[in-house]
Amino acid sequence: MAGNDSGNPKLWGGRFSEPTEAAVERFTASVHFDRALAHYDIRGSLAHVAMLARTGIIPEGDATEIAEALHKIGAEIEAGTFVFDPALEDIHMNIEACLRDRIGPAAGRLHTGRSRNDQVATDLALYLRDASQAARRGLIELRRVLVERAREHLDTLLPGYTHLQRAQPVRLAHHWLAFVAMLGRDAGRFEDAAARLSQSPLGSGALAGSTLALDREDTARNLGFEAPSHNSMDSVASRDAALEWLSAAAISLVHLSRLAEELVLWSSAEFGFVALSDAYSTGSSLMPQKKNPDVPELVRGKAGRGIGNLVSLLTTLKGLPLTYNRDLQEDKEPLFDSANTLGACLEVMAGAVATLEVNVERMREAAEDPLLLATDLAEVLVREGVAFREAHEAVGRLVGHCTGRGIDLRELSREQLTEFHPAFPGSGAELLDLEASVEARNLEGGTARVRVAAELDRLDAEIASEAERLEGGAS
Amino acid sequence: MAGNDSGNPKLWGGRFSEPTEAAVERFTASVHFDRALAHYDIRGSLAHVAMLARTGIIPEGDATEIAEALHKIGAEIEAGTFVFDPALEDIHMNIEACLRDRIGPAAGRLHTGRSRNDQVATDLALYLRDASQAARRGLIELRRVLVERAREHLDTLLPGYTHLQRAQPVRLAHHWLAFVAMLGRDAGRFEDAAARLSQSPLGSGALAGSTLALDREDTARNLGFEAPSHNSMDSVASRDAALEWLSAAAISLVHLSRLAEELVLWSSAEFGFVALSDAYSTGSSLMPQKKNPDVPELVRGKAGRGIGNLVSLLTTLKGLPLTYNRDLQEDKEPLFDSANTLGACLEVMAGAVATLEVNVERMREAAEDPLLLATDLAEVLVREGVAFREAHEAVGRLVGHCTGRGIDLRELSREQLTEFHPAFPGSGAELLDLEASVEARNLEGGTARVRVAAELDRLDAEIASEAERLEGGAS
Amino acid sequence: MAGNDSGNPKLWGGRFSEPTEAAVERFTASVHFDRALAHYDIRGSLAHVAMLARTGIIPEGDATEIAEALHKIGAEIEAGTFVFDPALEDIHMNIEACLRDRIGPAAGRLHTGRSRNDQVATDLALYLRDASQAARRGLIELRRVLVERAREHLDTLLPGYTHLQRAQPVRLAHHWLAFVAMLGRDAGRFEDAAARLSQSPLGSGALAGSTLALDREDTARNLGFEAPSHNSMDSVASRDAALEWLSAAAISLVHLSRLAEELVLWSSAEFGFVALSDAYSTGSSLMPQKKNPDVPELVRGKAGRGIGNLVSLLTTLKGLPLTYNRDLQEDKEPLFDSANTLGACLEVMAGAVATLEVNVERMREAAEDPLLLATDLAEVLVREGVAFREAHEAVGRLVGHCTGRGIDLRELSREQLTEFHPAFPGSGAELLDLEASVEARNLEGGTARVRVAAELDRLDAEIASEAERLEGGAS
Amino acid sequence: MAGNDSGNPKLWGGRFSEPTEAAVERFTASVHFDRALAHYDIRGSLAHVAMLARTGIIPEGDATEIAEALHKIGAEIEAGTFVFDPALEDIHMNIEACLRDRIGPAAGRLHTGRSRNDQVATDLALYLRDASQAARRGLIELRRVLVERAREHLDTLLPGYTHLQRAQPVRLAHHWLAFVAMLGRDAGRFEDAAARLSQSPLGSGALAGSTLALDREDTARNLGFEAPSHNSMDSVASRDAALEWLSAAAISLVHLSRLAEELVLWSSAEFGFVALSDAYSTGSSLMPQKKNPDVPELVRGKAGRGIGNLVSLLTTLKGLPLTYNRDLQEDKEPLFDSANTLGACLEVMAGAVATLEVNVERMREAAEDPLLLATDLAEVLVREGVAFREAHEAVGRLVGHCTGRGIDLRELSREQLTEFHPAFPGSGAELLDLEASVEARNLEGGTARVRVAAELDRLDAEIASEAERLEGGAS
Repeated sequence: MAGNDSGNPKLWGGRFSEPTEAAVERFTASVHFDRALAHYDIRGSLAHVAMLARTGIIPEGDATEIAEALHKIGAEIEAGTFVFDPALEDIHMNIEACLRDRIGPAAGRLHTGRSRNDQVATDLALYLRDASQAARRGLIELRRVLVERAREHLDTLLPGYTHLQRAQPVRLAHHWLAFVAMLGRDAGRFEDAAARLSQSPLGSGALAGSTLALDREDTARNLGFEAPSHNSMDSVASRDAALEWLSAAAISLVHLSRLAEELVLWSSAEFGFVALSDAYSTGSSLMPQKKNPDVPELVRGKAGRGIGNLVSLLTTLKGLPLTYNRDLQEDKEPLFDSANTLGACLEVMAGAVATLEVNVERMREAAEDPLLLATDLAEVLVREGVAFREAHEAVGRLVGHCTGRGIDLRELSREQLTEFHPAFPGSGAELLDLEASVEARNLEGGTARVRVAAELDRLDAEIASEAERLEGGAS
Repeated sequence: MAGNDSGNPKLWGGRFSEPTEAAVERFTASVHFDRALAHYDIRGSLAHVAMLARTGIIPEGDATEIAEALHKIGAEIEAGTFVFDPALEDIHMNIEACLRDRIGPAAGRLHTGRSRNDQVATDLALYLRDASQAARRGLIELRRVLVERAREHLDTLLPGYTHLQRAQPVRLAHHWLAFVAMLGRDAGRFEDAAARLSQSPLGSGALAGSTLALDREDTARNLGFEAPSHNSMDSVASRDAALEWLSAAAISLVHLSRLAEELVLWSSAEFGFVALSDAYSTGSSLMPQKKNPDVPELVRGKAGRGIGNLVSLLTTLKGLPLTYNRDLQEDKEPLFDSANTLGACLEVMAGAVATLEVNVERMREAAEDPLLLATDLAEVLVREGVAFREAHEAVGRLVGHCTGRGIDLRELSREQLTEFHPAFPGSGAELLDLEASVEARNLEGGTARVRVAAELDRLDAEIASEAERLEGGAS
Repeated sequence: MAGNDSGNPKLWGGRFSEPTEAAVERFTASVHFDRALAHYDIRGSLAHVAMLARTGIIPEGDATEIAEALHKIGAEIEAGTFVFDPALEDIHMNIEACLRDRIGPAAGRLHTGRSRNDQVATDLALYLRDASQAARRGLIELRRVLVERAREHLDTLLPGYTHLQRAQPVRLAHHWLAFVAMLGRDAGRFEDAAARLSQSPLGSGALAGSTLALDREDTARNLGFEAPSHNSMDSVASRDAALEWLSAAAISLVHLSRLAEELVLWSSAEFGFVALSDAYSTGSSLMPQKKNPDVPELVRGKAGRGIGNLVSLLTTLKGLPLTYNRDLQEDKEPLFDSANTLGACLEVMAGAVATLEVNVERMREAAEDPLLLATDLAEVLVREGVAFREAHEAVGRLVGHCTGRGIDLRELSREQLTEFHPAFPGSGAELLDLEASVEARNLEGGTARVRVAAELDRLDAEIASEAERLEGGAS
Repeated sequence: MAGNDSGNPKLWGGRFSEPTEAAVERFTASVHFDRALAHYDIRGSLAHVAMLARTGIIPEGDATEIAEALHKIGAEIEAGTFVFDPALEDIHMNIEACLRDRIGPAAGRLHTGRSRNDQVATDLALYLRDASQAARRGLIELRRVLVERAREHLDTLLPGYTHLQRAQPVRLAHHWLAFVAMLGRDAGRFEDAAARLSQSPLGSGALAGSTLALDREDTARNLGFEAPSHNSMDSVASRDAALEWLSAAAISLVHLSRLAEELVLWSSAEFGFVALSDAYSTGSSLMPQKKNPDVPELVRGKAGRGIGNLVSLLTTLKGLPLTYNRDLQEDKEPLFDSANTLGACLEVMAGAVATLEVNVERMREAAEDPLLLATDLAEVLVREGVAFREAHEAVGRLVGHCTGRGIDLRELSREQLTEFHPAFPGSGAELLDLEASVEARNLEGGTARVRVAAELDRLDAEIASEAERLEGGAS
């Protein structure tokens, strides 16, 4: 075995006459990041070797020896005691080389009928399936916390905003459930992405399958796939599953950045709607009085990372001919980084929301702003038969009049109101009331107490059912 | 009605004392691009006004008048005879102002219980549903063409490539079906995206619903949604449906860029595998001999646009508090541009592939490269009981030996082979054959004729069923 | 001339036997957007034809005829009366075809020694040079407005924020000058980008120059370049000048988004620091009381567009071999869009800031928050010889004590202070004062009145000198 | 000192009553990546403490003690023996806490008049200055290698390509110098970026400077800046210097991806123009015959990473109000990653090009394609007085005729030529010659030997002068 005798540790060194340049070894190595795949790589190898033995392609004894050694290596990696060698390029070669050191030439049978191309595609599919589950689990937990806090604040009123201008009063529960809705769709995207990962790449070889009588059905089933993939070239060349996952993560991180932005805004002295618990804040190295909402700020900032990672892989894939090209090695770091980022953001946001102190009075005070009832006043006129545009115009002039003079709409007598439109059926005080306004929006999806309470129940059930589906093992 | 009397054409001008700056009118106007929504805006308004009448919120007669006028305006927009006024900001205001000109104050009843916020969210959902269908239709057509051309070239052999190095021989059919697989998953993403658009935003008002007794179920059904949305604030604040569509489009454009790259490569003198038809090529203004693959080049280039559009909206949404913010107006141009781009790319690629001239001989000649059979030779040894790594290493040295000396592997005698490994059971000529190699990869997803033929049939059925599902009107 | 006789209007149709597919014509056409280059294309052609005559490559008479016709076409395009034909692909072909219609075969001499490749590279360089000037002009104007408003508010105090928490009091002038500094660096980037555009691509031909004796020095000088380019292949293949411009624009749009964010925040009822003039606000179609900061919201949102456009072209260029590839046609739309966007954003922000109403009292009130002086208190201890960390820790505890009990730091007696640290040399009232605090930060770049006033003068001079440099014509 | 006594290791813990959540500590910690700033942080601290002593703000003895300990800590970090504690958040706090452990309370004086905000801004500026130098150094080295290889191949002819179609013959030297031109502009961008970093942020405090009499001129000079910054809020809030660097890096990585694409293409069996040395290639785990161009493939793929990193930070900064927000912590990882990536790509590309084996015969053979001379033939007619369009059209028909029949243009007699245009002054053989064609493009920037040779000399001088400027220390 000249390659090895001559000191070339590469498993593909047979036809090469010159050793790899050190800078190239460093440049092409991926073992410093692809160890995140170790668990999946070992699982894949175990399924592969079991099949090789079952089909008689390799001797049963060798297979057993390989499997036992793989289990041990897996345990060592898990425990952090395995020593990786960057000169061995990647996680796959590190494991195989270690196998060779431990059990000798029999190790050389593991890679029978397999290429790193289908191997890494399989590892990645397994990783993505788990990453989708992890994302859904994190999304479930954050939604649970939001629903719980919402239930607690069913009767807390605050202004709803458009353009960051106070618009109409809403329940804090209603406000937070908007985020629950977004995060629910996020979870749906991860579920769909995982469902599209139902085919096993293993057995696709380098690009064209194998001349050996592999049993692809067997490894597919063993690894939890529904079936082997339909096209070997697609299996090793494609990374759209990773792109789809990264897209779902970027969208979800953007949603989190919106929730985070509100926590930052609401923590300001000017809003004063909430206070993050000390456990979710940090201080200033210079200014002793500062308590900063670092957690939501970082979550907001990390949306950039999620978008950047998506761009990175989309761009890398652009314009690549079939099948595997080494550019594809660049799929891992953005993926792992987004997976870690999303997981951490979901966790700390759940904690931050769970421990958030809500200043119910400040919110209520802001909601008392009489201008928030202007739309109601226009709708009063509509109920009197006035065309909406006419009503809107009249109330617009009325508001302009009051704002300039510091007048509260509720102080106006019916006579004063009718100067702006004759159809007003009562005084400001009679027509306008904060609680009544919120109650009056009694449509599906609206702010009335009964509507929001029903939505809380619906969401509890929806989340519970999703959790059951998830933990029941269906991907 | 001071606002209007004073010449302020804005429908929200009541409380304003100063006219809008001209530069601001230009800057905030969207009518030059959002007219793409006209069709959906009119549909939405028709559903809304019908409901307003049915529920008695506005008089039946006004509703009829409004509906008739809307139908006429819709027809004029379709015909291109409608004149848009940029001073009226957007498509919604243009239509409503025209309505007022034509039928007078009754027009002012159309916007009852509605805001531009839920109106535009509804328009966008309808647009996205159609855009998903259009994308799926285009994907079906391109896959059909690819399957057809693949069937024609079931027996055309060419080298499969990894790293753009010839790797193993494959059927051209097999090669193209890899793209059919990718495009099939793309279609799945659009289908899932459309399915997530099952709730009607209409009736969410500006952000908090309405105090009027709107029938949201009615408008939802009328517009083809399953139900009204569950949270009014989410409905007007969210754009993840657009993000999901843009992600699916970006991924699909990346797939097209890969197919395009191959057409460009294969059209080069060096490959010479294909020639685009004259109808899908262009010439040079300077060099008379040139026939350029402009169509695939542009398709490849347009992946950048698809990614850029996605980034644009992701970034715009990052960090926005609830609910509607004017930033959201920036959702339309990237979306419309990606929809137009994807549609056009799918169309021209289908045409380019359909009319492509394949140089079967050049492909065959390249596939005859004996080095492509090196893996088979290693697998011969494996079948003789040799461990794969040992086999790989031996064949590696053998290849190194032959490459240096210009020797064809098939010329080697068994004796020469056994110098590299004793287990070779025959001569190069006996062990290696192009056709046999392709046939020998007889696994699911592999290159054997029977496998590829079966896959062609499976795909025909899959595409037909998808087309039926699509045209049957489900999502 | 078969090509033309047979009705093929293409100027490269000689070797083609089939007409271009209609979908392909639409797909490859760029005339709907590249007419933005018309002015530069005509300038380039005029320089080229003048050189062709001067060097005797074409007859003087033909050159004169061509030049006169080009001037007329240019005037018609300017006036909007020129009719473009999409079947003629692009702006260059439209102009040349029109030329042929008007002056006959002599028109065929214009393209002598030129390709669309060097022609469009020249057009683009001229466009970019102007776009850089326009950006700088817009940046100068916005900075002028900011400096002017800053000067007006030299004595307006407000809280400076970190983490959106009130941190230390600053002058509004000082706050706004931070943006002037950012925008000044933005202008520097455009200036550098323009300086790197000093070489003329004209005469690079399709990729390799020309066998004709063109005088490249002459056309370079005529078009305002310093010299002809050094490498013909680079000239037609590169687009980094456009990338650099797009990067500078994206950075500047991000800066504007930050200023815009503050205008939105400060316009909220909660901050109440500013009110946009009616001329720079819009209303709500539903809520009569609303006055929305649409202009800054849109500016903030358009940062997404600027980033998306940059990504679009970066991605398009990734992985393209030399030299010209049709993918490069995708350089124009993102560039034109970013140029228009940046110009409009700078204009409306200048107007919005110029007409902004500042609520000096609300700002002052917020700045009076005694916690903003906590750092000063720590620095008092430092001046008494206490180590900073010890001082920070003591004041931290002090602040914790006061915040919980609603105590103003300024109410504490010296005795109370010394419970937290013995070195406090006076009472809260003696040690803490808003004005004094701002004045005490009397370092270069600090908040003391004299420092900020000096900075205003320095900036006036800097902007004036930049304006002079710009209008003096040096790019 | 309760904070510390109570075991809170945070340096800002004074006002906090609850410890930080463990997940939050992990989430907000940056010490696992910001240790790349250690060297700069220590330099900055040394300058700061020296100034504090010189101005008498802290005792000379304490300053000496601090400086000595900092030197030791720096050496330990350099040597890899320093132990970082993630609970201490970041590199700054790790160093300061270690200082406290070693020299006691005097350590508490280091942070006098400084905030982490101006500290990290200073570190980053120093890092960026060095990163710009490193990028320029790498660009110089790669250009040197390209110029050297170009000089070696001054007489190697190959086809120049447009649209990946053979277009006109060029010298390999000319081809490679196109990349030298691109990389030269890249270096210019880094130089400009560094020049814009001429002001020291140190002394800007948290956002508003300091009430202590710091000498900002002194620390600025000491750290190699020209002056202190002009606005303290800008200094801590801005990150456009990092954005500019990331833009320059992304553009340069896109250029490298183009060179890489060509190496991949040219290494294919179909082109066969070059062979990467074994030291710059890798093999296949399955296919023994493979020698893959992994290095250029990875370089090509890493353009995605460079673009993604830029997007990441642009997006993070979008919409942030002044001044420092914790989102800004997200500036480091993309920056460090792009700096490492660009450095590695430049290094391995220099090595790959330096050791590349060029197949001069294959290139020549491809260049002999007679169609490459078609433009020359048209220009022959132009020199005979024919209008270019007429000439182009005639040669187009001629080419169409020959291509269909497999005729070499050079075989045509004058009579045959004149059937296509009467003005042809000689036979194909007389009019067309590969060497003569390349020589005939004798314009500045053209392919004639004398032109390319002169350009080689010009570039040698330009690179040498840049290297001198760089190493001379001017940033």
